[in-house]
Amino acid sequence: MGTGARPADRPMPGLIFETLLAYERTAALRAAIELDLFRAIGEGLSDVKSLARRASASERGIRILCDYLTIMGLLNKQDGRYGHTPTSAAFLDPRSPTCLASISRFLGTSAMVASFNDLAEVVRHGRTSLPGEGSVEPENPIWVEFAHSMAPMMAPLAAPLGTIALEGLAGPVRVLDIAAGHGLFGIEVAKQHPQARIVAVDWAPVIEVARENARKAGVEGRFETLPGSAFEVDYGGPYDIVLITNFLHHFDQPTCVGLLRKVHAAMKPGGRVAVLDFVPNEDRVSPPMAAAFSLVMLATTAAGDAYTFLELERMLRQAGFQGMAAHPVPASPHTVVTGTAQG
Amino acid sequence: MGTGARPADRPMPGLIFETLLAYERTAALRAAIELDLFRAIGEGLSDVKSLARRASASERGIRILCDYLTIMGLLNKQDGRYGHTPTSAAFLDPRSPTCLASISRFLGTSAMVASFNDLAEVVRHGRTSLPGEGSVEPENPIWVEFAHSMAPMMAPLAAPLGTIALEGLAGPVRVLDIAAGHGLFGIEVAKQHPQARIVAVDWAPVIEVARENARKAGVEGRFETLPGSAFEVDYGGPYDIVLITNFLHHFDQPTCVGLLRKVHAAMKPGGRVAVLDFVPNEDRVSPPMAAAFSLVMLATTAAGDAYTFLELERMLRQAGFQGMAAHPVPASPHTVVTGTAQG
Repeated sequence: MGTGARPADRPMPGLIFETLLAYERTAALRAAIELDLFRAIGEGLSDVKSLARRASASERGIRILCDYLTIMGLLNKQDGRYGHTPTSAAFLDPRSPTCLASISRFLGTSAMVASFNDLAEVVRHGRTSLPGEGSVEPENPIWVEFAHSMAPMMAPLAAPLGTIALEGLAGPVRVLDIAAGHGLFGIEVAKQHPQARIVAVDWAPVIEVARENARKAGVEGRFETLPGSAFEVDYGGPYDIVLITNFLHHFDQPTCVGLLRKVHAAMKPGGRVAVLDFVPNEDRVSPPMAAAFSLVMLATTAAGDAYTFLELERMLRQAGFQGMAAHPVPASPHTVVTGTAQG
Repeated sequence: MGTGARPADRPMPGLIFETLLAYERTAALRAAIELDLFRAIGEGLSDVKSLARRASASERGIRILCDYLTIMGLLNKQDGRYGHTPTSAAFLDPRSPTCLASISRFLGTSAMVASFNDLAEVVRHGRTSLPGEGSVEPENPIWVEFAHSMAPMMAPLAAPLGTIALEGLAGPVRVLDIAAGHGLFGIEVAKQHPQARIVAVDWAPVIEVARENARKAGVEGRFETLPGSAFEVDYGGPYDIVLITNFLHHFDQPTCVGLLRKVHAAMKPGGRVAVLDFVPNEDRVSPPMAAAFSLVMLATTAAGDAYTFLELERMLRQAGFQGMAAHPVPASPHTVVTGTAQG
């Protein structure tokens, strides 16, 4: 079933067939999550009959689905019995603290999927087939879903981002978290640095998710919310640190520069901006996960992209930042790009 | 982007994200075929501007799509210019005699895709969400599409199948080709053996495709068509060889045995049946392409499956055949299972 990391020097007809059926992989994983199959496997059910009974499903369906998941590396099969692989145990069993199963909700929203139904038309027009600004149309409710369901995927990035953002700082620190969503990034900074105070910006229904997460993390006393569009609200300030996470990729470069100028104007001289994003290499085709993200932006936005480091550096410089540096986050497709606000 | 042949001994969070977005791979390849991008690349256009002009498409769309295809191994990118990989040159450029691009039409028909839209429901019920017998509901027009667009994928199998079917035979040979579709298998037998006469069975609008292909191949004088359902028409006979290609997987085992008995009754003693199909190993999870085919049968039929050799052997024995043997077809997910009609 593999389609990556193959030798490119011999023709592989199977790759055509597999790619044209790749949508089945998505369907299979979504079905298994919906049927709560990974929980049942984790609880020790391992034969088709027991799994079918637990899922209120047919034995034929469960057998074929479990075999397919095994082929994909998402289950293990031994002597006719199914068990977790290291990947499914860690990331698909709801009892695991690192479970990512909820991301299937956001990644399966109709706004995410719809533009792919006729991707040729999207390529012709060069923009999402969704109306207006696509996924970032004002107050699009998918961002509440994002804040809820994508948090487990973002959580492992928070600690590395917090360390990078806070490096070398001491004493009281004011932090602006742009398009905070679930709020996990600002919350992590607050946890790592007891003298940090966070202001988190996002649309009103989204920022409520961040506020609730701050309360659960016990940092609500240092976590303020600022409801509204990052392009419109008055940030206040001045700030020592500004976090811009998973945000710039939705917009074209002039729009990004405009936002970065607004950010710069709200910062102390010498303050640090930290941009967390999918940052492909300059060839735009590696590393695969970061580079492939561009297609999501083509399909779901009017003019967004996964920007390379040189592009981000140029935009940041135009907005008044200097000393830009890239910090790849280990074991993730993300990179943190930092810059320093000029006086 | 790869999801197969990975080490299973360490947890890979990226596999979850990639699998939930795997449907994008299908969308990207379908879009590129629709935009005739692989022809343009083959003709030497290599920069975004030229490719966009040729496809009447946006530069943003073409750039991002070509980068994505490069990540998937379906294009090459060097110094910002795109070219074919060995795989895209051989199997996606319409000027190549082995081009497979047309299979995207059959694999993208709504009847193929619809059941995957709610696969959890399919797993619950254990059968396709399509009405009746699903894809094999009588006179389903998708089989005309199959006969036209899947022929290039089946063509490389015809020569090996013909050799296996004819092995050791001499003199006049009567051949029945069940559910002949495009007819390529019977046609190949006619080409390999000038004394072979073929009777090809399929629904009337489908068998017209086979008749046309026989005419193109110059074997129409030895190629007779028998329009109708393989379960209902009188086969005539007796036959020396019966071909049953890509057919048994659509039905449950009792239905297959019933058909095989009918086939057996139309054969000479000592005649050879040759079943071409996706035949997974007894573990049902290898090899990956043959084993994964079961999911297509779950989603598109009432009770079909990719049967293992032992299952096929048992069904064939119940129908009166003996001496069953498996002949894997090199460089394909298919296997030919042969058996001999008892006297």
